[in-house]
Amino acid sequence: MTEDSAFALTCPIEAGEADMIELAHGGGGRLMHRLIDQVIRPAFATAATDFTHDGAVLDIGGARLAFTTDSYVVRPLFFPGGDIGALAVNGTVNDLAMCGAQPLYLSVGFILEEGLPIARLRRVAASMRATAQAAGVRLVTGDTKVVERGKGDGLYVNTAGVGAVRSATPLAPQQVRSGDLVLLSGDIGRHGIAVMAAREGFDFEGDIASDTAPVAATVLALIDAGIELHCLRDPTRGGLATTLVEIATTAGVEIRVDESAVAVSEPVRGACEILGLDPLYVANEGRFVAFVPPSAAQDALTVLRRAPGGTGAAIIGRVAASSRPGVLLAGLIGGTRPLDMLSGEQLPRIC
Amino acid sequence: MTEDSAFALTCPIEAGEADMIELAHGGGGRLMHRLIDQVIRPAFATAATDFTHDGAVLDIGGARLAFTTDSYVVRPLFFPGGDIGALAVNGTVNDLAMCGAQPLYLSVGFILEEGLPIARLRRVAASMRATAQAAGVRLVTGDTKVVERGKGDGLYVNTAGVGAVRSATPLAPQQVRSGDLVLLSGDIGRHGIAVMAAREGFDFEGDIASDTAPVAATVLALIDAGIELHCLRDPTRGGLATTLVEIATTAGVEIRVDESAVAVSEPVRGACEILGLDPLYVANEGRFVAFVPPSAAQDALTVLRRAPGGTGAAIIGRVAASSRPGVLLAGLIGGTRPLDMLSGEQLPRIC
Repeated sequence: MTEDSAFALTCPIEAGEADMIELAHGGGGRLMHRLIDQVIRPAFATAATDFTHDGAVLDIGGARLAFTTDSYVVRPLFFPGGDIGALAVNGTVNDLAMCGAQPLYLSVGFILEEGLPIARLRRVAASMRATAQAAGVRLVTGDTKVVERGKGDGLYVNTAGVGAVRSATPLAPQQVRSGDLVLLSGDIGRHGIAVMAAREGFDFEGDIASDTAPVAATVLALIDAGIELHCLRDPTRGGLATTLVEIATTAGVEIRVDESAVAVSEPVRGACEILGLDPLYVANEGRFVAFVPPSAAQDALTVLRRAPGGTGAAIIGRVAASSRPGVLLAGLIGGTRPLDMLSGEQLPRIC
Repeated sequence: MTEDSAFALTCPIEAGEADMIELAHGGGGRLMHRLIDQVIRPAFATAATDFTHDGAVLDIGGARLAFTTDSYVVRPLFFPGGDIGALAVNGTVNDLAMCGAQPLYLSVGFILEEGLPIARLRRVAASMRATAQAAGVRLVTGDTKVVERGKGDGLYVNTAGVGAVRSATPLAPQQVRSGDLVLLSGDIGRHGIAVMAAREGFDFEGDIASDTAPVAATVLALIDAGIELHCLRDPTRGGLATTLVEIATTAGVEIRVDESAVAVSEPVRGACEILGLDPLYVANEGRFVAFVPPSAAQDALTVLRRAPGGTGAAIIGRVAASSRPGVLLAGLIGGTRPLDMLSGEQLPRIC
């Protein structure tokens, strides 16, 4: 296209990049971060913290609000432990919680493909309603668009969410300090493996269900307990490793993780071995990491372990000052290795 | 699918409905309203006014906020007068304005198709940025997903928006009263015809560009002038006729419209004649109707005519009490006929 070429000439930043969107641009890893850094943030951000977090924190009429959005394109629409509707509610609820906010209201935007059975839309809508009730949020406004056969895949759904910020201090990678301990709220890898199994028809040892769940109540319990929090983040696309690398890089610190402290269920570990996957890179939809000062770690752990799915909660690492920011993993079999972001695409359309 | 059939058995409301999504379910007309009434609202709404308006009005921490969302799937991505990015910003800005709110913050969710040239994404993002600046809103948070080739159409974008309500009284069809006058903010039909021409390669007499534009400044000018407003609505999908029928039905009133007062530019009128379309059903993206008491009508008209694109602004009708709610059109060539919602689909993927 002439117009695109002309435009590209004025945007030399793209040199050296693939000039087409690839699946990995949506995978949560290195290529997605590059797309956001080089295309999205330069175009949109008007403040330094815009588009760097799970959501934005805004002052409106004296109220401090969190605002976030996610689109959901998971395939298949239904999988053990959840479906696209549950994911769309919990995912946005959790992004608000990661801002230290109490989630309140969600919007819903459907993109439906011609030929979608209406019964299937009803089933997704019913799941969204039930999930919203469980998470204590209200779906209040929406939109429906329809595209021709072959221009969608059944249904895609976007949710945006608004919440009331409850944390008195900002929660962000920039708040992470040397000495902070890293807590993980439960075992990892369930969502990614459950979706992969449903898609490929694998039948793994033990039932593996997605961990999709709202974590807002747990976050509010941490805040209500007066626990000092520096940063919260949910390790979705790209898994725990990518999330920690992102935080370490943004904060300019080194995060040392003890692999033996990271809970992985036996069925998930077995499935990962069969598939040649590292559970540290597998997506989660009901877990989060919390960075807290050492004095707050035990109290925080107590709250996390009391929460649903929290039996695997643990202190998994520690933050150190470093001239070379990154993540170092002390492995199960001894030795230490640096962790990197997910590179390429592990499983497209995981959420 | 067994699971869908089982679910359908518990949802007898669907009887008599087509059981598949059709393009007309997204067209803004009768079938879309039925889908919202029978599937979306029963599943989601927890208050009587949920999912009945362009947006929701919410109280959060003492602030009165408007919250809305729309997904955009317009084809082609670029057309005379605008593009999908401009539409995605102005459309959500205007939905907030229709709630009597000052638009403040927008979220952005992209669904990208594998193979999309990144230069094209840049161009859409640049358009969104420029449009947001012109409309006085900030894009503050976002999300990017990627789907395989053949599961999308280049790019779809969702925006959600948050604004501060400035109208002291609620604006809704339920506020419309017998005796109210109906004002239209400008001429109609430009957006629908511009997109159709771009898609089909028609070359109409006179240049027809989309009317996509933010109307928030005009709405705020009406509010700041102290003009009593009862209901505002932008006639997008389904056009002016469908919008008026929707309001008349919800309000339980009769709206009498004088066709000669409705401005249609010569090029749009000519194109509609060639295509066999009624401009009353063609989509607009920068116009709105306002229901005001007779005492406020002249002042309101003065404000509308001063606004960009407002030279065609006019009082186009009047509300009357009626036992048979609906819209009656006094035609250009004499006689009166009832108007109905758009039935079927005039032009898929207009926004």
